[in-house]
Amino acid sequence: MEKQQKLYEGKAKKLYATDDPDVLWVEYSNQATAGNGAKKEQIEGKGKLNNRITSLIFALLKARGVQSHFVRQINETDQLVRRMTMFPLEIIMRNVAAGSFAKRYGVAEGTELAQPILEFCYKSDDLGDPFINDDAIVALRLATAEQLAEISRQARLINEKLTEIFQAIDVTLVDFKIEIGETSDGQILLADEITPDTCRLWGHDAAQGQIEHLDKDLFRRDLGSIIPAYEEIAARLEALAQRESVTI
Amino acid sequence: MEKQQKLYEGKAKKLYATDDPDVLWVEYSNQATAGNGAKKEQIEGKGKLNNRITSLIFALLKARGVQSHFVRQINETDQLVRRMTMFPLEIIMRNVAAGSFAKRYGVAEGTELAQPILEFCYKSDDLGDPFINDDAIVALRLATAEQLAEISRQARLINEKLTEIFQAIDVTLVDFKIEIGETSDGQILLADEITPDTCRLWGHDAAQGQIEHLDKDLFRRDLGSIIPAYEEIAARLEALAQRESVTI
Ligand SMILES: Nc1ncnc2c1ncn2[C@@H]1O[C@H](COP(=O)(O)OP(=O)(O)O)[C@@H](O)[C@H]1O
Ligand SMILES: Nc1ncnc2c1ncn2[C@@H]1O[C@H](COP(=O)(O)OP(=O)(O)O)[C@@H](O)[C@H]1O
Ligand SMILES: [Mg+2]
Ligand SMILES: [Mg+2]
Repeated sequence: MEKQQKLYEGKAKKLYATDDPDVLWVEYSNQATAGNGAKKEQIEGKGKLNNRITSLIFALLKARGVQSHFVRQINETDQLVRRMTMFPLEIIMRNVAAGSFAKRYGVAEGTELAQPILEFCYKSDDLGDPFINDDAIVALRLATAEQLAEISRQARLINEKLTEIFQAIDVTLVDFKIEIGETSDGQILLADEITPDTCRLWGHDAAQGQIEHLDKDLFRRDLGSIIPAYEEIAARLEALAQRESVTI
Repeated sequence: MEKQQKLYEGKAKKLYATDDPDVLWVEYSNQATAGNGAKKEQIEGKGKLNNRITSLIFALLKARGVQSHFVRQINETDQLVRRMTMFPLEIIMRNVAAGSFAKRYGVAEGTELAQPILEFCYKSDDLGDPFINDDAIVALRLATAEQLAEISRQARLINEKLTEIFQAIDVTLVDFKIEIGETSDGQILLADEITPDTCRLWGHDAAQGQIEHLDKDLFRRDLGSIIPAYEEIAARLEALAQRESVTI
């Protein structure tokens, strides 16, 4: 597979064309951002860790019947994925109140939710990724009602399977953001990344009333280096994949 | 019916108990507010007009099969309603992009929507009435899934009937906010008010590219007095009720 011209440079990854029109080359960068790019830093080792973590998670999901855009890992920082037309949506699933949700509704961070919550934001840097609901998604033609139903079904299923995966490595999956796209032949598939950049992951070793953050909140909230936490997640997922004989 | 102790003083109305435990006495005040109370003014004649307009609309809706909390008008500024336990929700229906919706999603004000949009806000002055979706409403126990389905069904029906009513008086119903509650015997009913304070109403007499505002946007946006516009809406609804032999 040959890496060709750069197609897109995002906040965390670069996308390149390949000699296969249906396959993209993704390079995970060391850049960390928060607050829609207001805070920005290069963090040595982050790209490598996220490339590895997302590869492991896509493989562990596949073993649980959830397909994704993931094709294979190329090298430490790069992977191949199926080329998708992305829905301009940030698809958020929440199991525990945290972050913007806790603040918006005046709920203490850490409150267990009575049921998982699916939330959408309209992915638009210019508009600041505003919260959006199903009616508006369809009315603004960001997805058809049928596509939205399928996106929602997959999001809830992915939450179930991911919760299971993180439970198996002693981590609580508090919430996460995914992106979904459509292949040229109309298949709706999980794409983008699933990493500690896009999930809230709480370890089980915190003192009473404290939170053991194993995710980008360490960076967002200036709580310390993300690298040891990301390494811990990578190592535990690696061990889980080995136990399950899942290969990448 | 006897007016007893004051139960609640809101931004636009005062609620009093009566000698019937299932009936409340509502007094429409002259106060106008915008931006969650940031802008506040007394406007002579507003209470009287809103009391009349909401009475007419509840009666016109009833003639179209939509029940509400409305019992009867008592005097120029006051009316009797059934006592409800309110859902802490602002229930918004949109037919044309305007206001916060247009701004949030970068859509030009006046853009016709592909389909009506139902939106909820969590009614909380402290939190600034944040946008909320169905999952969160149920998870935060603001309503059960069954109650929410009934609220949504009624909201869409009310939009249909209200659109029809305003069409009959040559006004476009751009969007509106309603509140719904539950009676002591478990009936889910339209409550609160439907007035130019809670609807965006556009007349059909504007110059090309202009909007003829017949609603509280005149106040919110400092475009002039609301009184002539509210009087115009009241007079046209009065004539419609007469044509339809609807009495209050
Ligand atoms: N399989 C795919 N096909 C096409 N685009 C993709 C695919 N997976 C992810 N993307 C897009 O790649 C872009 C680059 O990722 P990222 O650096 O995270 O950018 P952003 O700053 O937009 O979040 C994102 O806009 C994402 O939607
Ligand atoms: N039938 C009813 N029974 C009980 N409460 C009601 C009823 N109809 C409306 N209300 C409530 O009356 C309050 C007074 O109205 P308003 O002055 O508009 O207050 P607010 O500042 O909360 O909007 C509102 O909180 C509304 O939810
Ligand atoms: Mg991204
Ligand atoms: Mg009110």
